[in-house]
Amino acid sequence: MTKLRRTPEQVRLPGGFSFSAVAAGIKASGRPDLALIESSAASAAALFTQNRVVAAPLEVGREFLLSSAGRLRAVLVNSGNANCATGRAGRLACERVCRHAARVLGVPAEEVFPSSTGIIGVQLPAEKIIAKLPDLMAARSSTKRSALAFAQAIMTTDTRPKIAAQRFRAGAKKVTIFGVAKGSGMIHPQLATLLVYLLTDVTATPRQLQQLLHDACDPTLNSMSVDGDTSTNDTVLLLANGESGIRASEARVRNKFRQALGAVCQSLAEQIVSDGEGVKHVIQLIVEQASTREEAQLVARTIAHSALVKTAWAGADPNWGRILAAVGRCGLPIDPSRVRIFIGNQMVCRDGVAHPFNEWQAHQSLAQPECDIRVQLRRGKNAMRFLTTDLTAEYVRINADYST
Amino acid sequence: MTKLRRTPEQVRLPGGFSFSAVAAGIKASGRPDLALIESSAASAAALFTQNRVVAAPLEVGREFLLSSAGRLRAVLVNSGNANCATGRAGRLACERVCRHAARVLGVPAEEVFPSSTGIIGVQLPAEKIIAKLPDLMAARSSTKRSALAFAQAIMTTDTRPKIAAQRFRAGAKKVTIFGVAKGSGMIHPQLATLLVYLLTDVTATPRQLQQLLHDACDPTLNSMSVDGDTSTNDTVLLLANGESGIRASEARVRNKFRQALGAVCQSLAEQIVSDGEGVKHVIQLIVEQASTREEAQLVARTIAHSALVKTAWAGADPNWGRILAAVGRCGLPIDPSRVRIFIGNQMVCRDGVAHPFNEWQAHQSLAQPECDIRVQLRRGKNAMRFLTTDLTAEYVRINADYST
Repeated sequence: MTKLRRTPEQVRLPGGFSFSAVAAGIKASGRPDLALIESSAASAAALFTQNRVVAAPLEVGREFLLSSAGRLRAVLVNSGNANCATGRAGRLACERVCRHAARVLGVPAEEVFPSSTGIIGVQLPAEKIIAKLPDLMAARSSTKRSALAFAQAIMTTDTRPKIAAQRFRAGAKKVTIFGVAKGSGMIHPQLATLLVYLLTDVTATPRQLQQLLHDACDPTLNSMSVDGDTSTNDTVLLLANGESGIRASEARVRNKFRQALGAVCQSLAEQIVSDGEGVKHVIQLIVEQASTREEAQLVARTIAHSALVKTAWAGADPNWGRILAAVGRCGLPIDPSRVRIFIGNQMVCRDGVAHPFNEWQAHQSLAQPECDIRVQLRRGKNAMRFLTTDLTAEYVRINADYST
Repeated sequence: MTKLRRTPEQVRLPGGFSFSAVAAGIKASGRPDLALIESSAASAAALFTQNRVVAAPLEVGREFLLSSAGRLRAVLVNSGNANCATGRAGRLACERVCRHAARVLGVPAEEVFPSSTGIIGVQLPAEKIIAKLPDLMAARSSTKRSALAFAQAIMTTDTRPKIAAQRFRAGAKKVTIFGVAKGSGMIHPQLATLLVYLLTDVTATPRQLQQLLHDACDPTLNSMSVDGDTSTNDTVLLLANGESGIRASEARVRNKFRQALGAVCQSLAEQIVSDGEGVKHVIQLIVEQASTREEAQLVARTIAHSALVKTAWAGADPNWGRILAAVGRCGLPIDPSRVRIFIGNQMVCRDGVAHPFNEWQAHQSLAQPECDIRVQLRRGKNAMRFLTTDLTAEYVRINADYST
């Protein structure tokens, strides 16, 4: 398989964006937990969680994008508190923080986009945030160092920041896309994933950006899972401030931009899954020969969310019977006697029954940090790739700590 | 909450059934792995897994029940090998074993019902089984001891046998129902569960039994989950040999029998969940005020299969936000601002937001071996109860062992 990206890429910044981060005392650890991106006037597009339980900043951010007609000047993020299941008080706190930040920045409140990540069900400590806004504004800069500080301040159980960048030429000019993300647990995005910010200096309308964002996320950030739990705060935001002087819709730019945006999203997806809570092994599931892409996706998700399959992977156990059993319960009228399963480059199950294979070699493939598992349904011509992980005792330890 | 049954009940046997168990060398441990129930001519009804991947003995058993018109004389069970994903060779091996057993018993082959449980994808060692059939037949007896030996021989990762019994009077006579089950992992039955044998001396037609079995299993064996993985070998078999001289359809018997059968199934469900792989805490989810029973079931299953919720329970963490987030992603148009959640007897979430509660007391409720969690949707009048478990590091250890 292609080696997956586990570590942050080099920071390469598009023009017109500045960053800062401070500690506002929301995280008990005292680490930085309040962060800002400021931009020259930018078009924006966003994707949000499909969970019916939606955090306050997502509701507020969605309204702001509507009333500003997709124009943004800043993104204000806190970690340590999700501002979710906090009711009307939570929405008011979110709006108040945005209004304060807008006043300091000298922009309309609806051009400050809010995000929160952390514990669910605890009211946002708005006063702590407001008190730190002047420090946050004072620290703004367009350096790589400040962009990295932003990436670190939005982390929760993440063990490392997630950064990706692409740059390409358009005539004498250059277009840059910079992406930053956080996410480690509650990862099973449905049309969006935790917090992802994609910044570019291309020129585009909000409507163009929305289509580009959707196309880039579907096979990347929307095709991965750590634990199957869809977050209440999933947000992907794409900002384009036009500083490069290049239009995304130009013929010579269009495909390059789509490819570069897809590459940034894929790199971030790989970094997120590799840094999943307690993850020891990343599995790239390739489901092939499905009737439809949706069918391939349902099979991939059922395998990726089976506790028995995921724990077998934790032990590098080439137990293909558990994979076949998961395919069998996915709800589709699949004929098991046509299914083939490959671990690494070995076929282990042919037409629903055991195919002779070298068990030690299959174990060794699964013992690597990354392994491909291929499932062929032989029902049609559609395929999809899905990134997922093992389920380890360490995941249980991280999430069983009595911490609320 | 009502205290759940964790340990086997007293063995109380209906007339006309005998049992035996031997070690045939299928389990590497050398423990007993081949077991038999013999009965005088009995009516039978069965429920099987809804997994599309179906083990050979289920296919053979279903055909036998059709060709014998629901009459059985014996049940032959092996543990240590599931005879699943073994193709045509697996079905032939299963039939061959049944034919041999039938010959020794002097009954038609289709009156010997086969079951297998254990590893998926390995061919059944039919010769080992056939070689031990004479010993198995010789050991038959109607003692409590032999019934217990049967219950032990069908165990795989179970740590204790599962037995339940009910007896009631019908005039001067008595009716007895004896149930025996195995199951610890891959527990998320869908219309059936792993291996469950229900034996009674009542008189009933196969058709009557089928309805009684369905009604008894739906709220019990079909409303529980350990890990969300539906087995390929789930089988529930009900045998009625009429030895009591009492008809199940008699007016004075009908309700008593339904209740007694339900009680046996409920006790076995509680024993199975309590003995789930690595389980430290059993949770009784009560989903109330749903529009339909199916809606309540979908909410219960989504909560019961959330890795984040289950690991919080492992730590006795009253993290209700994870429960609410699971409700929000279940796929129903639920309004989170109406949802209420109770842990033990305390309300912890009221109308989608935190409700002040004693955290220490909630932690203590969850630290017990059993705890009730109640979720009120406020959409209608339907409710259901669902038994499930925490997800512990021990579960991961049990299933991550490289054992194939």
